[in-house]
Amino acid sequence: MEVGVIAASGYAGGEAVRLLSYHPNVELTYITSRKLISKYFHSIYPNLRKISDLKFEEYSIEKAKEKCDIVFLAVPHGISQDMVPELLESGLKVIDLSADFRLKNKNIYQMYYKKEHSHPEILDKAVYGLPELHREEIKKANLIAVAGCHASSAIYGLYPLVNENLIQVKNIIVDSKTGSSGSGAGISESTHHPIRANSIRPYKMTGHRHTAEIEQELTLILQKNNILNQEVRVGFSAHAVNLVRGILSTSHVFFNETEEINEKVIFKAYRTVYNKEPFIRVVNQKTGIFRLPDPKLIRGTNYSDVGFQIDKRMNRIVVLCALDNLVKGTAGNAIQCMNIMCGFPEISGLEFPGFFPL
Amino acid sequence: MEVGVIAASGYAGGEAVRLLSYHPNVELTYITSRKLISKYFHSIYPNLRKISDLKFEEYSIEKAKEKCDIVFLAVPHGISQDMVPELLESGLKVIDLSADFRLKNKNIYQMYYKKEHSHPEILDKAVYGLPELHREEIKKANLIAVAGCHASSAIYGLYPLVNENLIQVKNIIVDSKTGSSGSGAGISESTHHPIRANSIRPYKMTGHRHTAEIEQELTLILQKNNILNQEVRVGFSAHAVNLVRGILSTSHVFFNETEEINEKVIFKAYRTVYNKEPFIRVVNQKTGIFRLPDPKLIRGTNYSDVGFQIDKRMNRIVVLCALDNLVKGTAGNAIQCMNIMCGFPEISGLEFPGFFPL
Amino acid sequence: MEVGVIAASGYAGGEAVRLLSYHPNVELTYITSRKLISKYFHSIYPNLRKISDLKFEEYSIEKAKEKCDIVFLAVPHGISQDMVPELLESGLKVIDLSADFRLKNKNIYQMYYKKEHSHPEILDKAVYGLPELHREEIKKANLIAVAGCHASSAIYGLYPLVNENLIQVKNIIVDSKTGSSGSGAGISESTHHPIRANSIRPYKMTGHRHTAEIEQELTLILQKNNILNQEVRVGFSAHAVNLVRGILSTSHVFFNETEEINEKVIFKAYRTVYNKEPFIRVVNQKTGIFRLPDPKLIRGTNYSDVGFQIDKRMNRIVVLCALDNLVKGTAGNAIQCMNIMCGFPEISGLEFPGFFPL
Amino acid sequence: MEVGVIAASGYAGGEAVRLLSYHPNVELTYITSRKLISKYFHSIYPNLRKISDLKFEEYSIEKAKEKCDIVFLAVPHGISQDMVPELLESGLKVIDLSADFRLKNKNIYQMYYKKEHSHPEILDKAVYGLPELHREEIKKANLIAVAGCHASSAIYGLYPLVNENLIQVKNIIVDSKTGSSGSGAGISESTHHPIRANSIRPYKMTGHRHTAEIEQELTLILQKNNILNQEVRVGFSAHAVNLVRGILSTSHVFFNETEEINEKVIFKAYRTVYNKEPFIRVVNQKTGIFRLPDPKLIRGTNYSDVGFQIDKRMNRIVVLCALDNLVKGTAGNAIQCMNIMCGFPEISGLEFPGFFPL
Repeated sequence: MEVGVIAASGYAGGEAVRLLSYHPNVELTYITSRKLISKYFHSIYPNLRKISDLKFEEYSIEKAKEKCDIVFLAVPHGISQDMVPELLESGLKVIDLSADFRLKNKNIYQMYYKKEHSHPEILDKAVYGLPELHREEIKKANLIAVAGCHASSAIYGLYPLVNENLIQVKNIIVDSKTGSSGSGAGISESTHHPIRANSIRPYKMTGHRHTAEIEQELTLILQKNNILNQEVRVGFSAHAVNLVRGILSTSHVFFNETEEINEKVIFKAYRTVYNKEPFIRVVNQKTGIFRLPDPKLIRGTNYSDVGFQIDKRMNRIVVLCALDNLVKGTAGNAIQCMNIMCGFPEISGLEFPGFFPL
Repeated sequence: MEVGVIAASGYAGGEAVRLLSYHPNVELTYITSRKLISKYFHSIYPNLRKISDLKFEEYSIEKAKEKCDIVFLAVPHGISQDMVPELLESGLKVIDLSADFRLKNKNIYQMYYKKEHSHPEILDKAVYGLPELHREEIKKANLIAVAGCHASSAIYGLYPLVNENLIQVKNIIVDSKTGSSGSGAGISESTHHPIRANSIRPYKMTGHRHTAEIEQELTLILQKNNILNQEVRVGFSAHAVNLVRGILSTSHVFFNETEEINEKVIFKAYRTVYNKEPFIRVVNQKTGIFRLPDPKLIRGTNYSDVGFQIDKRMNRIVVLCALDNLVKGTAGNAIQCMNIMCGFPEISGLEFPGFFPL
Repeated sequence: MEVGVIAASGYAGGEAVRLLSYHPNVELTYITSRKLISKYFHSIYPNLRKISDLKFEEYSIEKAKEKCDIVFLAVPHGISQDMVPELLESGLKVIDLSADFRLKNKNIYQMYYKKEHSHPEILDKAVYGLPELHREEIKKANLIAVAGCHASSAIYGLYPLVNENLIQVKNIIVDSKTGSSGSGAGISESTHHPIRANSIRPYKMTGHRHTAEIEQELTLILQKNNILNQEVRVGFSAHAVNLVRGILSTSHVFFNETEEINEKVIFKAYRTVYNKEPFIRVVNQKTGIFRLPDPKLIRGTNYSDVGFQIDKRMNRIVVLCALDNLVKGTAGNAIQCMNIMCGFPEISGLEFPGFFPL
Repeated sequence: MEVGVIAASGYAGGEAVRLLSYHPNVELTYITSRKLISKYFHSIYPNLRKISDLKFEEYSIEKAKEKCDIVFLAVPHGISQDMVPELLESGLKVIDLSADFRLKNKNIYQMYYKKEHSHPEILDKAVYGLPELHREEIKKANLIAVAGCHASSAIYGLYPLVNENLIQVKNIIVDSKTGSSGSGAGISESTHHPIRANSIRPYKMTGHRHTAEIEQELTLILQKNNILNQEVRVGFSAHAVNLVRGILSTSHVFFNETEEINEKVIFKAYRTVYNKEPFIRVVNQKTGIFRLPDPKLIRGTNYSDVGFQIDKRMNRIVVLCALDNLVKGTAGNAIQCMNIMCGFPEISGLEFPGFFPL
């Protein structure tokens, strides 16, 4: 199987290249960048000096078709939607890391992204790239819209509770914290080191675009369970913290009042959906320092840790989810989707367990 | 006016010493530490080498009485309650940095601190040391119970909204992020640098002791405004982030549904209570990087920045408050209380505006 | 006394504004920026919200003359040399934060700065702005060329040893480590947070421009002591470390072999020149964690800590010097120079002792 | 092949466990810890939750013999020397991560470690565990004394220059910078996060124990090349910087004056010894941000980057070497030694190329 990464110089594309470089089932044959044509990949990812001799090439649909069976598309939001149609027509399978095909409803797309979608007719063909929720559809898909990093973190935490209909879905609060790599490789004042270091900046308290994905996917869970009269509503707020990699999302949700809640019930809800998942770990220890998820523990890996704590007094549950925004939050999930699509072992190329301390 | 700091070696006491060392209206005559008797203060706060020649002394009630008019008590929680009675009897004014006299209700004290209070009869005499809420009582007080750092941050953010009765008070969420200095000067595994660095650790998701203070003080606001049938309920969760100093609290609250909310109304609520406050800044800009509060901007200062963003779709308001846990969150507020008690200019010794970038 | 800061938006100029804002002997009447005309200073230094209401103005020589007695010039290297002549002719005193007038020899200037100096005739009139070395000349100066940040750190450490002729001056090694604020407020790839964080980057191992200043000033010390046949040669290397503020320079030098060296002799050398200095602290403790200088302890202050350790086996002395690159390394020294020029108390406006921990 | 790790709870032992857990040629059958008997390894290395089900056992020579062919010994310095004899007698191969068997000369051992060596008769049997210098001896060894982390970094940088006899060996300066994980898993005041963060602390300017290793190994290179009248003398100084993992050593050395030096000559010296080395990369680019080694690029990997810059004016060369103190500086090199001893592919289990940015 031959794969390519389009726009491989950014952090999402670069991470896909890193992971595909030593993936045992594929050959990475084609990486592109408009600005870095004929430069070595390791010239901007210098950890790969002496390891990778890949060079950036110019993008063309012909080359993509010739060199690849599958392409990972890491172009910016808004550009992907104009490239995907011809890639699909060429017979390529497309794994899109952008947001362009994540939302099923073109009006909601327009509301959050402030532009009309140029190819709404394809929205239905895209499968939302969260393996734990859409494994069966991914197997048959030609177009994957890999989930957003914040969205993945929120959904992984909340999915089991929505799935068991344990919580009020109208007033979910998600308080998310992310490292600076989430802003991408492009420089800006807000990522200037003297400005960004040592800060906790509330950068998007309302209206964050990932809100739409979270609501879409969790509402879908309700619908699958035949709860048709409710729509999930999420108040999502994102903070920039003093880290390069990693997201921690803290969701504060209230139980449905009819429920008799205890830890056992909650554990069961999590186990039901995650017990066989290779990359989701339910973390909820009674002792030790790392009793709950912490991005420190999953940096560089495709693991996502989820955990929770019940606040009986407030009828509240606090749900934590940690993941690496560039791996399980983007490129890692993309490759897990590819593994599923291609019938490879699902963990192929993604087994790295991280290191500690770091 | 002569002042002393009891247990001056910890971070709260040490910060009080720093600020009192160059306070223009008082003389710092007495600092104590059990373990460091006759050592220089600068031996553990080496930024004060060549600046301070204070030495730690042994504590005794006689010495305190002889050398001081006011004492700042920075002993651990649980110990303060046994020391305060004799200090008061000696005619000293006491500014207690511990939690021992913050809660008015001894049962709630016992519930959160897991021990019976040894002097519940004094609880009523203590004034909760948040200058913006209790200025008039502080003027006449002999015992100040300085507010907790997380509690101060949460209260500063929520007070104006509760004061105008704009929000639902039964389901307030406070998601707080704090630096490592909040854990104090004592070493532990969880503050070992390789463990603590580069992490976002959800360390106390439910049952945090500051919850009780926040609820007490906000409920009191309701009562002052003759809203007697409601009690504030706060779901408070605290995270340890990759910083030494600073707290950011993000409160997610829902508006009372009868209210027609817009930004003007909210601004007015904040201005009403904070307009003349020397150390509270309402920060809510439309442009720039630092549109909302960030602990980066108030580190080392007695300022607290508060701001908010309205989420109409969710009927939610997100309230941010940033402060330095050791200054506005502890020692700075303590000194501001002293200034009020003693009739000094309220900003005396607290004018430092911080530096940027850092 | 009325003062202005030209190009006040950068980190050096901004720091001068901060310090002058609460300087008791001067009034800050004029701050300029080409890009931010009529914007508030606090719009880019948001720690000064509600504290400073200064606005940026356009620069003109007429305005400068009208509004100021002294100007601090914080324009980039190369621009200053064309502005200084008319400022001096207007009767203003000039404190130049750039490198343009630091070097006495126009050829050496050209060698290091790769351009011809446009006003070499003024080089002799400028006094090198290191108060501890040039106090008497500063008193009478109209033009101060404030020392470079790395250079200050290296010189403070080495000056006492050169002054007593204790060391070999041909093979001095200075290994310097600096925070990211030294790169200035302009954004670039190398200061992009994901790139700059968690790194130790050897960014200028040879040919650093501050080398010339260090050699000039230390050679001058030899000459003052009638050692005329030697020139100091410094191998200076600069590293970017994971901090925003602060420089630590580690100098490795070899003793003159004729000398019988012990700690007493060295201490005496340091005390001889620094004993009465208000901002230089000789730090060399036998116990404790901070036995030697550390930038952590002087962040935000005008203090510089110097210390040393003798390596008898190698006939080597290791000299450490820590300072804040934006304060004692730039703006603080500039203001100390101003205090000396104007006959103010030398420590005026510079007393802040920092805080710990941070 | 069955392997064990004795004292596997510390950072060196823990890293060995991590790497051995997924080593394709061995089975990790035995890990010990005195304090954590029957606890899961992942209870203190929680990144391995759900991945490793290893449990700590008690140490006994019988068990070690029964369960292992090779043991990695990660006990503290001073203890190893009493355990190694019986392990060797049991027929086990021993890879010792401590310093106990690194020095060939018992007197030098005693000078640096302040105690008499309890088994000096074994010193000669131990091979210094730096694969690039001792590959042939490692093949036949039963006891490996894995090189110290600072020492490895200094030696990797200097070895090619000494090997070609290009530099003065009497006045080598090594200025080393290390992250906090180098201090180990034990807590202490100096690694308390509020103290350790944001600092650059010169912690061991003279007399660092690794000095002895560096001198021994580089002198040995001279001897191998029949330069018998010289001994290498290194002035080694170690700084603690604001990182968890990684060492950068900056060596400042002077050329032998008879040599005509240019970059080509130096490159050749490095290529001669490192060209076929799988884990040493010579990094010396003309453009880009990462022109020279930076620990950021090798974190978590067994790679070591070396580079240099020539300072003709000073007749100096600045040599940089970056490595991960826990991998190439300890456990990674240990496993590379094991691979060599056992005839496995040398890179087995060590291929991870790191990720970027982090």
